[in-house]
Amino acid sequence: MAGEELKALTSAPHWASSPEDYKTALYVADKFKAAGLETSIVPYNVLLNKPIRISIEAFNANGDKLMSGPTQEHVDPKRYGGDPYQDDPRVLPAFNGSSPSGDVTAPVVYANYGELADFKELQKMGVSVKGKIVLVRYGANFRGVKVYIAQKYGAVGVLIYSDPTDDGYFRGDVYPKGPWRPATAVQRGSVQFLPIYPGDPETPGIASTPDLPVSKRIPADKIQADWPSIPSNPLSYKDAAPILKALGGQESPRSWQGALPFTYHLGADGGPNVVTVHMHLEQDTRLRTIWDVIGTIDGTDPAEKEDWVIVGNHRDAWVYGAVDPNSGTAAMLEAVHGFGALLKQGWRPKRRIVFASWDAEEEGLIGSTEWCEQYANHLAHAVAYFNTDVGVSGPNFTAGAVPSLKPFLRDITQRVQSPKGGTVYSQWQQTQKAADAMRASTHRQFRPETPGENDVRIGNLGSGSDYTPFLQHLGVPSTDIGSSGPYGVYHSVFDNYNWFTKFADPTFVYEQQQARVFGLEALHMADADILPYDYQVYGADIVGYVHAAQRHATALNLSLDFTAANAAAQRFANAGEDIHHIQETPPPNTATLNHALRAAEEALLNPAGLPKRPWYKHTIYAPGEYTGYAAVVIPGVNEAIEAQDAPLAQAQITALAQALNRSAAILEQAAK
Amino acid sequence: MAGEELKALTSAPHWASSPEDYKTALYVADKFKAAGLETSIVPYNVLLNKPIRISIEAFNANGDKLMSGPTQEHVDPKRYGGDPYQDDPRVLPAFNGSSPSGDVTAPVVYANYGELADFKELQKMGVSVKGKIVLVRYGANFRGVKVYIAQKYGAVGVLIYSDPTDDGYFRGDVYPKGPWRPATAVQRGSVQFLPIYPGDPETPGIASTPDLPVSKRIPADKIQADWPSIPSNPLSYKDAAPILKALGGQESPRSWQGALPFTYHLGADGGPNVVTVHMHLEQDTRLRTIWDVIGTIDGTDPAEKEDWVIVGNHRDAWVYGAVDPNSGTAAMLEAVHGFGALLKQGWRPKRRIVFASWDAEEEGLIGSTEWCEQYANHLAHAVAYFNTDVGVSGPNFTAGAVPSLKPFLRDITQRVQSPKGGTVYSQWQQTQKAADAMRASTHRQFRPETPGENDVRIGNLGSGSDYTPFLQHLGVPSTDIGSSGPYGVYHSVFDNYNWFTKFADPTFVYEQQQARVFGLEALHMADADILPYDYQVYGADIVGYVHAAQRHATALNLSLDFTAANAAAQRFANAGEDIHHIQETPPPNTATLNHALRAAEEALLNPAGLPKRPWYKHTIYAPGEYTGYAAVVIPGVNEAIEAQDAPLAQAQITALAQALNRSAAILEQAAK
Repeated sequence: MAGEELKALTSAPHWASSPEDYKTALYVADKFKAAGLETSIVPYNVLLNKPIRISIEAFNANGDKLMSGPTQEHVDPKRYGGDPYQDDPRVLPAFNGSSPSGDVTAPVVYANYGELADFKELQKMGVSVKGKIVLVRYGANFRGVKVYIAQKYGAVGVLIYSDPTDDGYFRGDVYPKGPWRPATAVQRGSVQFLPIYPGDPETPGIASTPDLPVSKRIPADKIQADWPSIPSNPLSYKDAAPILKALGGQESPRSWQGALPFTYHLGADGGPNVVTVHMHLEQDTRLRTIWDVIGTIDGTDPAEKEDWVIVGNHRDAWVYGAVDPNSGTAAMLEAVHGFGALLKQGWRPKRRIVFASWDAEEEGLIGSTEWCEQYANHLAHAVAYFNTDVGVSGPNFTAGAVPSLKPFLRDITQRVQSPKGGTVYSQWQQTQKAADAMRASTHRQFRPETPGENDVRIGNLGSGSDYTPFLQHLGVPSTDIGSSGPYGVYHSVFDNYNWFTKFADPTFVYEQQQARVFGLEALHMADADILPYDYQVYGADIVGYVHAAQRHATALNLSLDFTAANAAAQRFANAGEDIHHIQETPPPNTATLNHALRAAEEALLNPAGLPKRPWYKHTIYAPGEYTGYAAVVIPGVNEAIEAQDAPLAQAQITALAQALNRSAAILEQAAK
Repeated sequence: MAGEELKALTSAPHWASSPEDYKTALYVADKFKAAGLETSIVPYNVLLNKPIRISIEAFNANGDKLMSGPTQEHVDPKRYGGDPYQDDPRVLPAFNGSSPSGDVTAPVVYANYGELADFKELQKMGVSVKGKIVLVRYGANFRGVKVYIAQKYGAVGVLIYSDPTDDGYFRGDVYPKGPWRPATAVQRGSVQFLPIYPGDPETPGIASTPDLPVSKRIPADKIQADWPSIPSNPLSYKDAAPILKALGGQESPRSWQGALPFTYHLGADGGPNVVTVHMHLEQDTRLRTIWDVIGTIDGTDPAEKEDWVIVGNHRDAWVYGAVDPNSGTAAMLEAVHGFGALLKQGWRPKRRIVFASWDAEEEGLIGSTEWCEQYANHLAHAVAYFNTDVGVSGPNFTAGAVPSLKPFLRDITQRVQSPKGGTVYSQWQQTQKAADAMRASTHRQFRPETPGENDVRIGNLGSGSDYTPFLQHLGVPSTDIGSSGPYGVYHSVFDNYNWFTKFADPTFVYEQQQARVFGLEALHMADADILPYDYQVYGADIVGYVHAAQRHATALNLSLDFTAANAAAQRFANAGEDIHHIQETPPPNTATLNHALRAAEEALLNPAGLPKRPWYKHTIYAPGEYTGYAAVVIPGVNEAIEAQDAPLAQAQITALAQALNRSAAILEQAAK
């Protein structure tokens, strides 16, 4: 069943706002309705760019053409079965969501992964990127952050390529022989400044409903530093190679060397070894309609029915999106089908369950963000948001979560069988232990973070998927699940049904596994008598975060007073312990307890938001300003320390202490 | 001066036994004589192979030719100044010393670095090398060890190539633009089974003097397991690439992947993806004459004059040998020149100093080994052997030594100025600290071996140069010095005067530095009232070695009794401490004390030698059976433990304890 659904969903490229995307919305809505969900298609009008013409050419100092691209994504149709999807004329050329149009010609500088440290290193080596086109490789941070930093440093354009070291033949056999990225495959993707705010760039904090008056929108040309103003485009390693190979100037630092067969240089400023690139991008950037699909099962408990459980996955894809995102969509539909069967037997949940099929996630979490902004008041009561994006790219279960839901997630995965035998949890544990052992054998001094700890480690939530508006804007406790493996076709034309059934999950058994975990998360949360948040774990984590920040500040010789934050963290941890005992032997009136448990997470929001990025309101987690995907903990405090801004750091310590005290007070009250 | 000497020595290829090699012997002898040394040219007749025809061809399953080589070592003469030496017709084709002739055709298997662990991994993956030609990359162990293991596992031929990850464009710009290995450059080298015994293979333990009767020689066909019986040859990465690229079969383990631009496979046993190589090697293997040059300055002290100080460097080269070895020869000649000036002023050393210019080191330490075997009785009194091989490849001082001479070497380097400012020692320390800091920043959990220790760390002596017969066969305390940098032309035609003056030491200032350190070692040792051995340091090290071996045995569940070895090590350490105090306030009769200090090292020899390799007699250090270059400490014990052979390990523990007790008794007697 998941197989049929995946095949149907991925039969055509379905870029957000395209007619094919709308067809998938209808398909999902039909499935929701068939299961008995109250279903609606919710449209938003949002700013999206569509490539009209993408041209990138490189020249040496004599004006000889080194490359002219982008090359069409293509593999030899006669070897290893070829690829049946690559020649569809509806496939858009590879491009960056949120890149402006541009026609720039400039010398090229190579800047490694485009991390802040890389740009600083270039500066130290006397290489300026001002007025240059920066060539960076994928990896280490979110691609929008690469553009964000390059723009700050005065670059006029950015080219982002997939180096075979990180994503290509160095990892293993390339498609269609193996699962890894072939030479022409390009990683498309948004370069939105995600750490500033996601969603429609013209409407931060406001929903882009069709009836939103234009006057409420920030005109695109007024967004400035919060939005890419320089053109950027992704490249395959086939197209990047001739540029990189010809670069003159200094040898790059040796850790910047990739797996292309020559020595990487930084690029010359002029002279006989300069490489000049001409980027000509024409983007049709305007308001386009996208479609979330929302399906609801009403709750029965009057005290709890307004406390929603939301389950979501995006539906739009850069091209076919077999893995990203429709392996997740197929799993969600399978879970919905299961709920349909329950509904037919007369079952109803205590709390309302909302299934959401988001649109335009790829452009910057737009469908989920606009919906969250529209229903912010209702979502203040939401008890959980469960996300899946890349549902299945292989057999290894992975997850991220807020600390309060980590024990819940471990519990759920212990209840689902793995196709490998045993439970999802036991397999997860085994994979993690094997990876630890492998690391320990390569890095003699490697020690897993928490030695002696037998529990599976679960990562924190940064960004890069639809849990961001729920958790970091609204304070809804969230989890994100997936099942991973060697996956070298991310955001390329080759992420299609052929690749999926050859390498990810030929018999759809991991699809079924994910459907069960996903469904069970919703079922248990919707029917829980006592909300299963673990504030004891959360408190211990936060105490640790504050201590680590203090050590970091000391190492940087910043004079900061952590007294209030340490006290508040300890108070929160103590309250967490107390409430944990109450949850084990709950009082008769569970509604009050549940309300407090839910309110304690919301109290961790700072209504003023983070410095420079007020849309992000959570005091404990945010995507890092300079990482994008990876979470920064107690971000206000840590980023001010990293920037060595003592007054700001002190103010953020105060804000953190206030949030922790607010939250602790709620828990203390409930524990009385 | 060092510059002129280097230019003269490297004006022609001077492979051991060639007429050009003989010319360099005359040149060095002249320099020795000019300085006032009593000089002789000492010939030996030894077994050497010279390539007559080297042909290597690769074919796919259809019989299409994939490569035909070896390609001549060549760089574009029009770019970056080209190379003025590459076209000399006297350059021999790249080959392996000690490879037999052979004409074999077989499928190829890729075996990573050809370490024992790699062959075990292949076995685990179900890939047999029996009857195959094994393709391995340089690095991790001595090339002869690769052949030694391949032969044991039943391979019929070995190809050894330089992967650009370890030695080529991945490291940095290639010659002539930069110092790293260009695509066609080949690392020649001996594949002798060095860990079994070095020197002329037909005369282990006996000197191959011209008058040695044939009856005293082991015929080549009787050496069997101690000598390569399968053909092997080195390859450039240009020639290895088409073979590796075409290999079918399983994907290689990912840590086996190198920097060539495709995914490395293990090789198919047959079928459409098999790659077959035809190696046709014709070697002219016969007795050839080599020439050591020996120059002597007699000692004045009747009690000490027979206790020689030997200073040595080899002179023969695979091709031009600008770095290896003639940068060392030039430094030695500069030091000899300095002694000449002292002699002219009437100075004479207390102890005899012997300068040695070894021949046929490249073929297997032959010149030094035969000389040591010839003068074994005299060398029983030798107080030190100071070696330099790769004298200068860049600005960073490096050294290895027996523990008893480590403090001596630190002292000497504190007395010589560095061209970078400060002393050689302070620069050495700084380079080591910078490397530690770099490692610490990349590997978060890296800790230098001896934290808190401010002294420069000095490595142990394994093998790969001429100190081996002195230290490991005869027990002469030894050091080995050099000055290193990015050096990608090792054993290729490009290790010539052009490369040297472009990248290693354009103004010969490091040549002068090395000459001073080398000369000062000899001067201080020859004139020392009390021999500067530090048995306190030596004792502490040995106690540590025994403890580590015991822990290793326990980890492997081997039931061994370490009581005797621990007691003997402790006794040796205590005696070392006592003698250290005596050395600080010496008695009037220093001769007796010096004799004991010297005899204590000799007492560490086990006359029976190591199991399976009786030529190696030192109980504390030997080249590892499976490493070749790297030292194994207390080798008899550790290798028996590694092989999990408890009875052998117990016997070796006894032998070690006996040697330590012998040595300790000598020191105790002297300390009374």
